[in-house]
Amino acid sequence: MITNNYYTADNHGPFELYDLGDFPLEEGGAIHGCQLAYATHGTLNAAKDNAILVTTWYSGTSGIMADVYIGQGRALDPDKYFIIVVNQIGNGLSSSPHNTPAPAGMARFPRVRIGDDVRAQHRLLTEKFGIEELALVMGGSMGAQQTYEWAVRYPDMVRRAAPIAGTARNTDHDFLYTATLNQAITSDPAWNGGWYQASGDVGQGLRHQARLWAVMGWSTEFYQQEFWRNLGFHSAEDFVTNFLEGYFLPMDPNNLLCMAWKWQHGDVSRHTGGDLSAALGRIKAKTFVMPIDEDMFFPPRDCEAEQALIPGSELRVINSVCGHLALFGPDPGFGEQVDRHLGELLATP
Amino acid sequence: MITNNYYTADNHGPFELYDLGDFPLEEGGAIHGCQLAYATHGTLNAAKDNAILVTTWYSGTSGIMADVYIGQGRALDPDKYFIIVVNQIGNGLSSSPHNTPAPAGMARFPRVRIGDDVRAQHRLLTEKFGIEELALVMGGSMGAQQTYEWAVRYPDMVRRAAPIAGTARNTDHDFLYTATLNQAITSDPAWNGGWYQASGDVGQGLRHQARLWAVMGWSTEFYQQEFWRNLGFHSAEDFVTNFLEGYFLPMDPNNLLCMAWKWQHGDVSRHTGGDLSAALGRIKAKTFVMPIDEDMFFPPRDCEAEQALIPGSELRVINSVCGHLALFGPDPGFGEQVDRHLGELLATP
Repeated sequence: MITNNYYTADNHGPFELYDLGDFPLEEGGAIHGCQLAYATHGTLNAAKDNAILVTTWYSGTSGIMADVYIGQGRALDPDKYFIIVVNQIGNGLSSSPHNTPAPAGMARFPRVRIGDDVRAQHRLLTEKFGIEELALVMGGSMGAQQTYEWAVRYPDMVRRAAPIAGTARNTDHDFLYTATLNQAITSDPAWNGGWYQASGDVGQGLRHQARLWAVMGWSTEFYQQEFWRNLGFHSAEDFVTNFLEGYFLPMDPNNLLCMAWKWQHGDVSRHTGGDLSAALGRIKAKTFVMPIDEDMFFPPRDCEAEQALIPGSELRVINSVCGHLALFGPDPGFGEQVDRHLGELLATP
Repeated sequence: MITNNYYTADNHGPFELYDLGDFPLEEGGAIHGCQLAYATHGTLNAAKDNAILVTTWYSGTSGIMADVYIGQGRALDPDKYFIIVVNQIGNGLSSSPHNTPAPAGMARFPRVRIGDDVRAQHRLLTEKFGIEELALVMGGSMGAQQTYEWAVRYPDMVRRAAPIAGTARNTDHDFLYTATLNQAITSDPAWNGGWYQASGDVGQGLRHQARLWAVMGWSTEFYQQEFWRNLGFHSAEDFVTNFLEGYFLPMDPNNLLCMAWKWQHGDVSRHTGGDLSAALGRIKAKTFVMPIDEDMFFPPRDCEAEQALIPGSELRVINSVCGHLALFGPDPGFGEQVDRHLGELLATP
């Protein structure tokens, strides 16, 4: 357990903690005293049928989901819905390598799967709020993985699903990309097998990871159009240093590695002995599969192949030269498209 | 200067050396006793008008160019043409960090530009062979950079040009990608600022670089289709280890860094004060611009924007799920398309 002031309400907005007690994991072992951090927006109605679950991506927290996706007049409108944003295990707000006391934290934090997150979220929703039905589950990237897992694992509980820029079963290419993110951290001698003194000691590894996101996170067209000018930067290098390195530098390396392993091994077909078609065929939610056209590692064609296996689903491709990291909201057109699709989806009976 | 048995005729086929003496460089300084390694195929005719120059890419040598692009019945037919394949400076056969004696080798090897290569090649062709006109200049990736540099620098000497999967002015995105390749090497403690004892000492860095190529060098569809099966591998991981790591592991890290700097700074608009349109407007060669549709870092749209600035040029997009590394020849359809386009180009008066 190490001190890291990045993972606080000051940076990520207010959140509550739900204590799951000893939480057993799919890979074996357990997180002892597992805490799930979540934030809510709006009010649960008496029928308890206006609940929306929002999940988080690699490195993301409930804060950015509220900033980019939730608001009055938006599709995710807290005046209409009770919106619960749950931080994934390992993201630094929920139980994570950095905030778990010795002997179990840091490099000894156990391996966590997407299925563990979804079971933990299910406990929170049912035990804490008595929610038996979700009007919508939505999330981007690893949040899409959790969305798919929800729709496959609890088909009767999820009425609508919107996986954005993510897949139900991770691809080989995506696995290799994520491995390079890990490699950036673990090749930093200061990482020391996960036993650094302070997160910032592994600054070189975190900066290197940021630079991999510079290449794969946006798109070639993002740089050709110098889209970074819209974000207030003066050169590509200025953008990479002051936006991307600045973003990753305060994070905890073991937290990122925990999430990355989960990302790499995301696969709903674990429920059906490896049969992806059978797994996705279980989904009862009305599902909009929403890839981003310029995404370099979750390309629309990969998402479309999965969408074709989901009964009654629709493919809604979002256009943005920001590529995968359009998820962060730098492109106003992205938010408009997401709202339009989610609005339509929520209007579906 | 260090021993590295990879850079030998055993591995790369026979080659000759041309001694340029002290060769001054655009960035200042010189390579003392600069050697240019080249291989020829076919016979120069009496009119000396059947010469084709083939350039090399990052990590490539004259050997692979002969294997993949040259042969009887191919567009580059040694029965018809005198084909000179020149190894770029830094590639390990021509003067390079690893084979330059102290005090100038290894980390002290000077910075080399694409323009230096092209001036060196010009000296070889004119001084050694008396060639005043080239029927064709062709090359892929960094070889395309040299091809563009030839057509802009010596417009009266180049009758036809075929830059494949490369750009005339390197893009910001491409610069960032190449920086991650460098980062893989320089973050290996064994690199030691360029002063390792043996190339293999930096094995971790070279393996990490190989894994970046695994992500960017092919395409997402290459992995979805498990194209690696066609190459005799049994899983994506098997392919990445035994093909890509195996490919880079014997190479010299300083050689790769030398070529990478050159790649990053390739820019024909240096001839025209930064005006790319003016630079490309100088080209008199009949030019086929040949991007690969699935290329993740030289996407067709970037190449098309340059092609539009070249008088009388044509865009010939090559289709291959192998992406950029289709250049290596793993996809038979790639070679067929290249031959068809080059055949048409060579038939142009």
